[in-house]
Amino acid sequence: MKFIHTADWHLGKLVHGIYMTEDQRYFLNKFVDLVEEEKPDAVVIAGDLYDRSVPPTDAVELLNEILFKINVELKTPIVAIGGNHDSAERLSFGSSWYKQSRFYLSGKLESDIQPIHINGVNFYLVPYAEPGMVRHLLNDESIHSHQDAMKAAIGKIEKHLNPNEPNVFVGHAFVLGGQTSDSERTLSVGGSGCVGSELFEPFSYTALGHLHSPDAIKHQKVRYSGSLLKYSFSEAKQEKSISIIEMKENGQFDLRIRSITPKNDLRELEGHLDELMDPSIYEKQNVNDYLKIILHDEGALIDPINKLRQIYPNVLHLERKIAMTDMKKKHSFSSVKEDKKSELELFKQFYEEMTTSEFTDEKNAVMAEVIEKTLKEEAGR
Amino acid sequence: MKFIHTADWHLGKLVHGIYMTEDQRYFLNKFVDLVEEEKPDAVVIAGDLYDRSVPPTDAVELLNEILFKINVELKTPIVAIGGNHDSAERLSFGSSWYKQSRFYLSGKLESDIQPIHINGVNFYLVPYAEPGMVRHLLNDESIHSHQDAMKAAIGKIEKHLNPNEPNVFVGHAFVLGGQTSDSERTLSVGGSGCVGSELFEPFSYTALGHLHSPDAIKHQKVRYSGSLLKYSFSEAKQEKSISIIEMKENGQFDLRIRSITPKNDLRELEGHLDELMDPSIYEKQNVNDYLKIILHDEGALIDPINKLRQIYPNVLHLERKIAMTDMKKKHSFSSVKEDKKSELELFKQFYEEMTTSEFTDEKNAVMAEVIEKTLKEEAGR
Repeated sequence: MKFIHTADWHLGKLVHGIYMTEDQRYFLNKFVDLVEEEKPDAVVIAGDLYDRSVPPTDAVELLNEILFKINVELKTPIVAIGGNHDSAERLSFGSSWYKQSRFYLSGKLESDIQPIHINGVNFYLVPYAEPGMVRHLLNDESIHSHQDAMKAAIGKIEKHLNPNEPNVFVGHAFVLGGQTSDSERTLSVGGSGCVGSELFEPFSYTALGHLHSPDAIKHQKVRYSGSLLKYSFSEAKQEKSISIIEMKENGQFDLRIRSITPKNDLRELEGHLDELMDPSIYEKQNVNDYLKIILHDEGALIDPINKLRQIYPNVLHLERKIAMTDMKKKHSFSSVKEDKKSELELFKQFYEEMTTSEFTDEKNAVMAEVIEKTLKEEAGR
Repeated sequence: MKFIHTADWHLGKLVHGIYMTEDQRYFLNKFVDLVEEEKPDAVVIAGDLYDRSVPPTDAVELLNEILFKINVELKTPIVAIGGNHDSAERLSFGSSWYKQSRFYLSGKLESDIQPIHINGVNFYLVPYAEPGMVRHLLNDESIHSHQDAMKAAIGKIEKHLNPNEPNVFVGHAFVLGGQTSDSERTLSVGGSGCVGSELFEPFSYTALGHLHSPDAIKHQKVRYSGSLLKYSFSEAKQEKSISIIEMKENGQFDLRIRSITPKNDLRELEGHLDELMDPSIYEKQNVNDYLKIILHDEGALIDPINKLRQIYPNVLHLERKIAMTDMKKKHSFSSVKEDKKSELELFKQFYEEMTTSEFTDEKNAVMAEVIEKTLKEEAGR
């Protein structure tokens, strides 16, 4: 029995103010081709189908179109759960109808988790849920952390699990020891959002979503597929991939990795401004890639970002790097590592990542005033 | 062939700051019972399933639950379209799956309108669309008004319409001569949003949504079903109903009306404060109804709304009425008819209708300042 494990599509994602929807459309159409070629018995999507609870309408249309191609046109069963970025209720709409054509969507955790049987394999679907919600759902006052909640959910599953059959757990969680990037949303503010990998011991394979690197944890049976695309520069060096699992009757499996080339890569580029503007350098590259450029020049440069954008239209971020021997000059221009950003800089960065509009001087002035006022009030207490 | 015509459910509606979802749930469960009893060949919902493009999650869950009961549990085909309150794209998600169990949902107008055949009747689905969207979709630069758009859409349908079969048009529009209430959203700002009823001549029956009164137009074959519940006090005296149509093979039909008693009515109550607080008066009423109370008392009253709410918890609006002979006293307290509300009063009213929170003195002060500043700027131009 063969299934594809993917997760963290984040449809409708904004990266540094740029909507990724067209890149996602290009990639997912290639993914559909891969499904057609592989002819798996199921496609498993382990949460974060959308990037937010109310995604843009073109992201809604894209998800509808891709899932329809896979499920109805290619007649491939789909097993999908909600992640921490999805709205449990909104994602769930219609799921009672979808299952009639073997599209099993669990947006919201239910107290009775019945397995989905596909070609001899049992899939247990545990969508992302806040510990408080699980406490209420299972009527168990002892649940306070994500670890407690996951343990309770798996405890319920274990009561009717047949260990002699291949059982696959599909979940969306931060499993202990996993490596984070800049584009996952923290699951818990204060306190740990982690769950221990030992909880998944009863399962032949655990198909996880949440962390964006396919190598986020080293474990024989508990795996992240990684996100669809690179969604932050901290993921620039990751190899994104699609996991193909061939599950045997005894629960052992073979893992194979396939990759799809995205329309535009997301990567870092370093050098002196003159070098980067040199045709012999840029002609060898996809200049449309999403770039973080790190300039090595010293001294003043006139409007480097607009010069660079004439060649590389998708420069998302520009930094300047100073050789350690020049540390005495550090304060003359911005440096790669800033120890502590001001509130205003942090807000500006957040604003530019979350919206498509520019953080104008006017907006800057308004925020500066608000921050100053707040800091004064804080100091006055 | 028998079908039920309903429209304008407006799930997630706020009336004077109160969510109607629990009233809608009560009513719709009775509607499901009615469907079970009538055993129609189809249920037609002519738009505005939700009250807004991004409805609250409990409205999403309610719609899912009710449509599932009708379509899957009672095995009744559903024919539904998007209205001007729905989001075409969000509502459309999943519709390709739904039609497999004969739930035909058209959220977004398509250029090729193919009929849905149910037991010998052809249903043509034309969801609400802006004229600009139809101009683009049909690539017809001459489309500017709702009348143009509807004419073009019906023109396309007529090309393949068989006039010897019973044809039902399902649409969401403001048909000329229709009577409005305070709870429909205007379709066009400036210019007419109306379409002429003569356009629907080719159809045996036209099942409309948009206007909330079932008597909104007097026409043999073109009808509004009216909204599910009363959603404004201008609808207080309307008789809401469910239309049951028995369509014959020659396109003639019999119309029957059924009504469902809502959990709480929405109505006006008039009298002197003492009378309304008298047990012999209120014990005969459902004190939980949503009320607009008009007091006939003259002179000052101490905190009448809180006194009334001890008996009638759902007083949504309080007014005072002055006999014409007392017009000289008019300015001593607020009157029923205010000729012109100030910007601040209009905003306060809007705020209280659109949110569940109170318009506090603090908010009042902020808005007063904004309005004053804007008026000064306007005056300075």
